[in-house]
This record gives sequence, structure tokens and C-alpha cells, in this order.
Amino acid sequence: MLRAVEQGLVGVEDLIESCIDRIDEREQQIGAWQFRLNKSDIITQYQSNRAFYQQSLLKGLPIGIKDIIDTADMPTEMGSIIHKGRRPVNDASCVSLLKSSGGIVIGKTVTTEFAYFKPGKTANPYDTRRTPGGSSSGSAASVSDGMVPVALGSQTAASVIRPAAYCGVVGYVATRGTLSLRGIQPLGQSLDSLGVFSRKVEDIDFVRSILLREKTSLEELKGLKPKKVLLIKGSCIGDVESEMAQGLETVKELLKDQGVVIDELAMDHWPQRLVECHGLVMAYEAARNLAYESLYMENLSLPLQDLIKQGIEISHEHYVELIDEVTSIYSFIKDDYCSYDAFLAPAAPGAAPLGLEKTGAPHMSRPWQVLGLPTVTVPGLRNEEGLPLGIQLIGKKLADKRLLKMAVWLELLLK
Amino acid sequence: MLRAVEQGLVGVEDLIESCIDRIDEREQQIGAWQFRLNKSDIITQYQSNRAFYQQSLLKGLPIGIKDIIDTADMPTEMGSIIHKGRRPVNDASCVSLLKSSGGIVIGKTVTTEFAYFKPGKTANPYDTRRTPGGSSSGSAASVSDGMVPVALGSQTAASVIRPAAYCGVVGYVATRGTLSLRGIQPLGQSLDSLGVFSRKVEDIDFVRSILLREKTSLEELKGLKPKKVLLIKGSCIGDVESEMAQGLETVKELLKDQGVVIDELAMDHWPQRLVECHGLVMAYEAARNLAYESLYMENLSLPLQDLIKQGIEISHEHYVELIDEVTSIYSFIKDDYCSYDAFLAPAAPGAAPLGLEKTGAPHMSRPWQVLGLPTVTVPGLRNEEGLPLGIQLIGKKLADKRLLKMAVWLELLLK
Repeated sequence: MLRAVEQGLVGVEDLIESCIDRIDEREQQIGAWQFRLNKSDIITQYQSNRAFYQQSLLKGLPIGIKDIIDTADMPTEMGSIIHKGRRPVNDASCVSLLKSSGGIVIGKTVTTEFAYFKPGKTANPYDTRRTPGGSSSGSAASVSDGMVPVALGSQTAASVIRPAAYCGVVGYVATRGTLSLRGIQPLGQSLDSLGVFSRKVEDIDFVRSILLREKTSLEELKGLKPKKVLLIKGSCIGDVESEMAQGLETVKELLKDQGVVIDELAMDHWPQRLVECHGLVMAYEAARNLAYESLYMENLSLPLQDLIKQGIEISHEHYVELIDEVTSIYSFIKDDYCSYDAFLAPAAPGAAPLGLEKTGAPHMSRPWQVLGLPTVTVPGLRNEEGLPLGIQLIGKKLADKRLLKMAVWLELLLK
Repeated sequence: MLRAVEQGLVGVEDLIESCIDRIDEREQQIGAWQFRLNKSDIITQYQSNRAFYQQSLLKGLPIGIKDIIDTADMPTEMGSIIHKGRRPVNDASCVSLLKSSGGIVIGKTVTTEFAYFKPGKTANPYDTRRTPGGSSSGSAASVSDGMVPVALGSQTAASVIRPAAYCGVVGYVATRGTLSLRGIQPLGQSLDSLGVFSRKVEDIDFVRSILLREKTSLEELKGLKPKKVLLIKGSCIGDVESEMAQGLETVKELLKDQGVVIDELAMDHWPQRLVECHGLVMAYEAARNLAYESLYMENLSLPLQDLIKQGIEISHEHYVELIDEVTSIYSFIKDDYCSYDAFLAPAAPGAAPLGLEKTGAPHMSRPWQVLGLPTVTVPGLRNEEGLPLGIQLIGKKLADKRLLKMAVWLELLLK
């Protein structure tokens, strides 16, 4: 889009209008937005700062922001009736960075309650009887449905990787700690990461540069073929559906054909143990981060009440043991597994399940999330019904750029 | 205080009144408060919830909160004119936890601008011509001056340990990541820690339990004599004044007399290198966390403008190298130095310097802060003028309770 704008092939106002028209046309079915500006306000915002937008990196392109990320000019309700109408005083840093690079935040996308399990109103654009995944449900669905080119999300368990998989878009989770989380509601401080959704990996890289406050340009991101990949089929993590298992076999063959060395992780205990540690650490930390909301327990969903109660029961000593155990597992696997360029694994157990009352199983992301590794959902695979089957590439800590280059390469291969 | 209340020796209202009277008497000279409730409002708050406070852990005791920590019922201005009158919509988690345990937040204590270098109005209670240290200036001074028994602060470089040293109180910085930072303005996400000030180590332990949402009681915290301590005299970190060097010798002899084995760190390169890494990581991260404020550069102090400009110039690749280097240094020293129960080091280069235009040098804290280690300023030493000379005990990651027990023991020894 930005290249087309630069080359004068299309005007930004036309792009904005086409996004808004798409939302108007589809929002009734998809329910991606918790709050949004109307068309005329967005156009006015653009026109009254035209010179700024024309010189900016993002040119005035529309962006969606997950509703657990603070915005000063829009409500931020975090999917909870406790915060109905809540209006933060400041933008989150990521919002400031996008705005000052010329992005127009056109609205807030639906999140599950405090980015945990209770879904909002969003449906999957591929089949509205199915969940879009969560917690960044609206961000994934809005990008998938062509409502916005880019949306921000966040991930504590599987909140970016899984909805991206279910909605057939690219989802990126940064190495933990590398992007500012100022103004983003924390669920678990040793688990939370900022994430980005788009329809192409290249877009992610561009937005990431802005979020890193780098000097950036519209230069193409060249793909990088990995030399050696570790395939983690997922059964050592939890349930994997047969169509996903089949999909992974397809990818494996494709990679082999390209001369990539693929090893398979033997049935090993550590991924499962990381899933368990992740769940307990999340419960412990959520119970402290949601101290305020705990005063209004009756206004929280039952799963969230249970999470908080579970977390309160976990002693600090036990929490420390869990953190230590995760560190040990990382040390244990580091040398062996860092000899691979990336891990390849299911981004979810299968395609988006039927029903909107749950957001699907998060276990496929838990091991990498508790380790703080960067991950990307790469779309392209489909099941027999034509539903997206997302796979994820898992990179090395702090090597996000390299991961994105490999994802560009894989994206092309799966097209 | 709480034990006296429990035993019926004193009423909580009397304690509240004595705190407020002290503030009224001294605030003109000390300037510890950015905002505070008036006496009648505090008393009314207590009286209208008497039953709750009587059954609570903190019984209604007055508490001060550093003004970069969000409070919904008071302004949170973060020491910046950009946020003049800013009123957050929610309490920070630490504030919710203290309030729901019966603490009464009576006001916001002065912070330097965004917890960086530009001082507020606070003076040192021991000598009002001298700095109280920063950035948690008001929290340290208010506790030191008997205005409140406990105050919260935060530390990115030396913002708790140093003001505690200068003001002759106990300052505690938790292992990074273990306490919820929700609602606390971040400066550097891989450096920020929540901190607590009090006049006795035991109080810190009690407040820490509340912040950890533990079931706690007024049980005494028993002191623990360390077996083996590594003395880090500080000259490998940066300047140390001769009276501090002398003070450390005194402590060393006291510990030896108690049968503690004391080794001295040989002149080594790593502490100095950690100081450098810390400074660069802070600049990099601050430039991203203060993205919004960067739009109003002219309203920031020159040192903060410089920090942001410096941070923007640091590439992500360089930042990643710095993080990697810190990790390597930690791995390198871990086995050797973890054979000690604690490190003992100056909490600041000397006593509080004259003048209120600077908050003193932060280097003595930078190495431990970038490693994320728990630290405690233990008061007790004085220089010839009677000014406090703070030393710090540095514990092992996640072993905060053990560190506090050793601090109890050392506190008694230095009395």
C-alpha cells in the first residue's frame, strides 16, 4: 500500500475510505471493533494534517489497537465491565510511536477480558461460526478481513500467534522485553510481549522498526533460507489435530526440497514442563497485576476468578522455583537447540474451532512464551475446508530480524 | 507501630495525627510532598471505614507513594510539567495492594523528572542544604523525617538505594520482575524495580509480603548472620570518598569480629563494564518509553533531552549486544560469586553532597541494577559531621527474603 502511495498509484484518502467501507460492510458479522472513529472524523484528521502525513513513514494509514493498550483519545476497556468507558490519560508508547510516524489509529479492537480467556463478540472472517482465537481477537480478525493493514496485539500465552493462525494472517511476537510495554495492561510481567498483525511479513518488519524507534525506510525485506530447522510436531506439547500434523508433513517436504536440513525433536519432557510452568507463572503474576480488579471479583468471569484464586494460592517460594526451573530448562536446551536457525511448530492445534464461546487451546505457544522467544505465525496452509492452518517459526532470543527474514522466505514458499 | 496498636498502647488515629503534624511542622523545609491530603480528609477516611482498618494488616497507617506511581484519587505528575495535573484512571497494583491491606495513602512524594536526574524541591532532613538523593527523593526524605513510616519508590539506576543512604533510612529494591509494576511509569523495562523505604528492615519485609499478596502476619523477622561476604569497595565501580572507604573498613572489622568470612573483590573489570552497559541500556529504553514525551522535547530538562537523544542514536543491534554482554557477565560471575551469601558495597560514594541541584552520583547501584539483583541500603554508619553513610547488601536473584534476614542482622550490628 505504502509503495503504491509513494508511486502515486493510489491516494491515502482512497485507502482510508476503502478500509472504512470494508468495516461498515462487514463489522456486523465480524465484530472486530470495541470502539471506532467514524469515517468523517478520520478523513478530517487526515486532511487537517495532510502535510505531516505526506512526509511521514506511515502516510496516514489506518491502524487498529487492541483494547488493552491505552489510548488517550478513545476508551480502553480491556474487555471488562469493570472498566466500561475508561478513558486513559496517556497513549501507550507503542501508540505514540505509531502516531508520530503517521499512523492513524481508527479504533480499538476487541480483546478477551484482560487478555485472558473470556471472548468478546468477534467472529472468524473465514467462517463466522468459528472463533477468531484470542486474546487479540479483533486485531487478528480486522487484519484478516481487510479492515486495516496492521493492528497491534499482545501475548501472554498464545494471544497473537493463535488468532493469527486461525484468521490466516501473519502474527509476530517480539523477544520479550525489547519493545516498550508502557501503557499496556499487564497480565504477567515475565510473559507479556507486544505483538503485531499484518497480511505480509514485510509489513511486520516495517512496523517493528517504528516501534523500535529506528530510522527506517520502505526498503524490501529480503528472505533468508534457514539452513537447519528443528521440527517440533507438537505432540510433546499437547493435542495436535491430524490435519495440522499432515500440514506439518507438507511443510517438511517443501523445506527438504529446498535443501533445508530438518531434524525432529524426539519425544522430550521439557516442552510439556514449560507449558505447566507457564500456566502457573501466569496465574501467580495475574493475581498480583489484577490486584485492583480483585476487589470486584463478582464482575470478573469465572475463568478469570479461578485464575486469580489459583494465583493467590501459589506461594512466592513456589513461584521462584518455577522461574528458576524455566531458566534451567533454557540453559539445558540452549546449546543444543541454538544450533538450529529456527524451530518450526504448529501455531495452534488445528484450524479455528467452531463456536464463539472459547478462543481455542493456547498450549502451542506456552513453551516459547515462557522462554521469551520471538515467534511468527506464517499463514499459507489450509485444511480441506479451506480454513487457515497456521504454523509458527520460533527464533532465537533477540534475533528477531533474522527470524522475520526466514519468515519472509517461508511465506513465499507456502503461497 | 503496628504492634503497639495491636497491644492497645496507642491508637491509630493518634499515629495518623502525629504523622500529619510532623508533615505540617517540617514540610516547609523538607519539601517531600508533591501532593497530600489534608488532615481532616485523612481522619474522615479512617473513621468512615474504621471496622475495615481495624481488621486490616496495616490498620490505617499512613503511606507515601512516589509520584511516578499512578493513583486514581490524586494527581500523578511524574515530576514533569508535561503532566501537570494529570489524574490517572486507575491505581497502580502496588497502591491497590497496600490500600486493600489497610494502608492509607496520604499523598504523593516528590520524584525527579520521570525518575531521571532533574531534582524536585526536596531537601535532606539531616541537612537541608544537601540533596536527599533521587529519584525517589520525597519517599526517602519523608520516611527519614518521621512523616510516614513507609513509602514506595522505584529504581532504574540508583533511585532507592542512594536516597535511602543519604537520608539514613532502609531502602529495598526487589529482584527485578518479582513485584507488579502495573501503573508505574517505566523508564527502562529491563532495569526498573519497585522499591520500599522504611526505618527498619523488618517493616520492609512486612510491606513486601503485602506487595507479594502473601498471607502475612506481624511475626518478627529473625536476623541471619551471613557466613561469607564479598566486599566490593567500590573503586572498581567509580569514585568512592575516603569517609566511605573508612566506613567500609569499620564494617569489615565488625563482621570479622562476628566470625564472618570476608573476601575482597580484586580490582576487576566487570563492575565498571556493567556501569557502562547500564547507562546505555537505560538511554536506549528511556527513548522508547518516553515516546510520547519526546513530542514535547522543549518541556523536558536538558539532561533528559540528552538521554533521549543518546538513546535514539543507539541502534537495536547495539542494544542487543549490550543485553547479551550483561547476560554473559552474569554467567561469568555467577558460579564464583554465588558462593558468597551477599555482596557488601557502598550504597553511594559518600554522604549526601551539598546542593539541591543534583541528586548525587548513581554509579554504585548501576552494576546490581542491570543484573536485576535485590539490594538493601542498611543505615547506621555516620561520617564525622553526623551525616548518614549508607552501605548496601546485594543478594542473589530471587532470594530477597534471605537478603532481608541478613540485613536485619547487619542493621542490629551497625546500631
